[in-house]
Amino acid sequence: MRLGVLISGSGSNLQAMLDRVAAGHLPGVEIALVLANTPEAYGLKRAHHAGVAAVCVDHRHFASRAAFDQALVERLLDAGVDTVALAGFMRLLTPVVLEAFPGRVLNIHPAILPAFPGIHAQAQQAAYGVRLAGCTVHFVDEHMDHGPIIIQAAVPAMPQDTEASLGARILALEHRIYPQALAWLAAGRIIVHGRQVEVVGARYTGEGPLWTVPALEPPFISEYPV
Amino acid sequence: MRLGVLISGSGSNLQAMLDRVAAGHLPGVEIALVLANTPEAYGLKRAHHAGVAAVCVDHRHFASRAAFDQALVERLLDAGVDTVALAGFMRLLTPVVLEAFPGRVLNIHPAILPAFPGIHAQAQQAAYGVRLAGCTVHFVDEHMDHGPIIIQAAVPAMPQDTEASLGARILALEHRIYPQALAWLAAGRIIVHGRQVEVVGARYTGEGPLWTVPALEPPFISEYPV
Repeated sequence: MRLGVLISGSGSNLQAMLDRVAAGHLPGVEIALVLANTPEAYGLKRAHHAGVAAVCVDHRHFASRAAFDQALVERLLDAGVDTVALAGFMRLLTPVVLEAFPGRVLNIHPAILPAFPGIHAQAQQAAYGVRLAGCTVHFVDEHMDHGPIIIQAAVPAMPQDTEASLGARILALEHRIYPQALAWLAAGRIIVHGRQVEVVGARYTGEGPLWTVPALEPPFISEYPV
Repeated sequence: MRLGVLISGSGSNLQAMLDRVAAGHLPGVEIALVLANTPEAYGLKRAHHAGVAAVCVDHRHFASRAAFDQALVERLLDAGVDTVALAGFMRLLTPVVLEAFPGRVLNIHPAILPAFPGIHAQAQQAAYGVRLAGCTVHFVDEHMDHGPIIIQAAVPAMPQDTEASLGARILALEHRIYPQALAWLAAGRIIVHGRQVEVVGARYTGEGPLWTVPALEPPFISEYPV
């Protein structure tokens, strides 16, 4: 898999991918290009530190979304990219990109989709008073935060949480589930039927018995897996 | 706590409450009245079998929501009810009920709110292809499925799930979290600040380390709790 990572900002998910590749945890995955839509993106520095090719394609220099997307596609294809991962990329993609890489564009969103799409999802979750927050890796379609879901993670949210505390808890999960999804895709284990994404050989029971927040107490607790 | 349970149909959550009371798992909670808005509700039979007072107040006999709600309130107050639990109650409550029992009206919804409000939530979750589904117990406000959240539970959803298979998995959690929420309320452990519900002394870390669906695999897995 030759991966192109699209960023707009800090790029912490990019860093997680770079670290995993360096550690040998993503066999068959090479990060061929990091592409930012603004020169201020700190993720560009991360790419340089890791010795990965990086480029800025400033969306403000283009008259239309389609023209911008065409420039993105050209840079990505030039780098031999076959899979695109959005990692905090703040521009909505048009079909130009999606048709250049059909079924190969992924995104991560810091909420349990379809709840809390859009920006400031961490702050929204904290303000709403949810008890389960989380994140989602999904294939990208023409609608924001909408394509078929590959993996979701849940974290507890608590009354005293702020955007920062909850965001940090979610981010720790993001840094695991995004590389995991890429590993599955690179291994050819992902099959998509409509909205359903099957990961061949994956375990669907989660990592614990029951998951409630707050935790259940006896006599309501159960030792039996769901 | 003298509980009034409002139902429209089968009443499986009512049955879970009846069973928990009979088993002594809900000390201080008495189910004072089961009230259905239709004579067909099977939950009325469940109440009779358990020796609990039951009544039908048919919404079709009333000219307005407010008049119907007024009749509900009269029956509930006559029975000495101080707390109201909606268990599959299909009528939207007006402020008439909410003001008669301020901060004491609860509902359970078979999704991780605010995702998938409204009817057929289980089918909606299966069709959407979520990987995390679940249920929510919350206080009722004037908006459907919207009030402050007390407890949420997550269950895995899989590509092969139907409405029935996913619904059954969610229901098993409903039958735990609803009695748990009632136990906390009866014990005076619930404090509400705006949208945030604090359960005094409750554990917010959930029952397992990380919770993702599909499950993470090495080297992305973690043995450490969140």
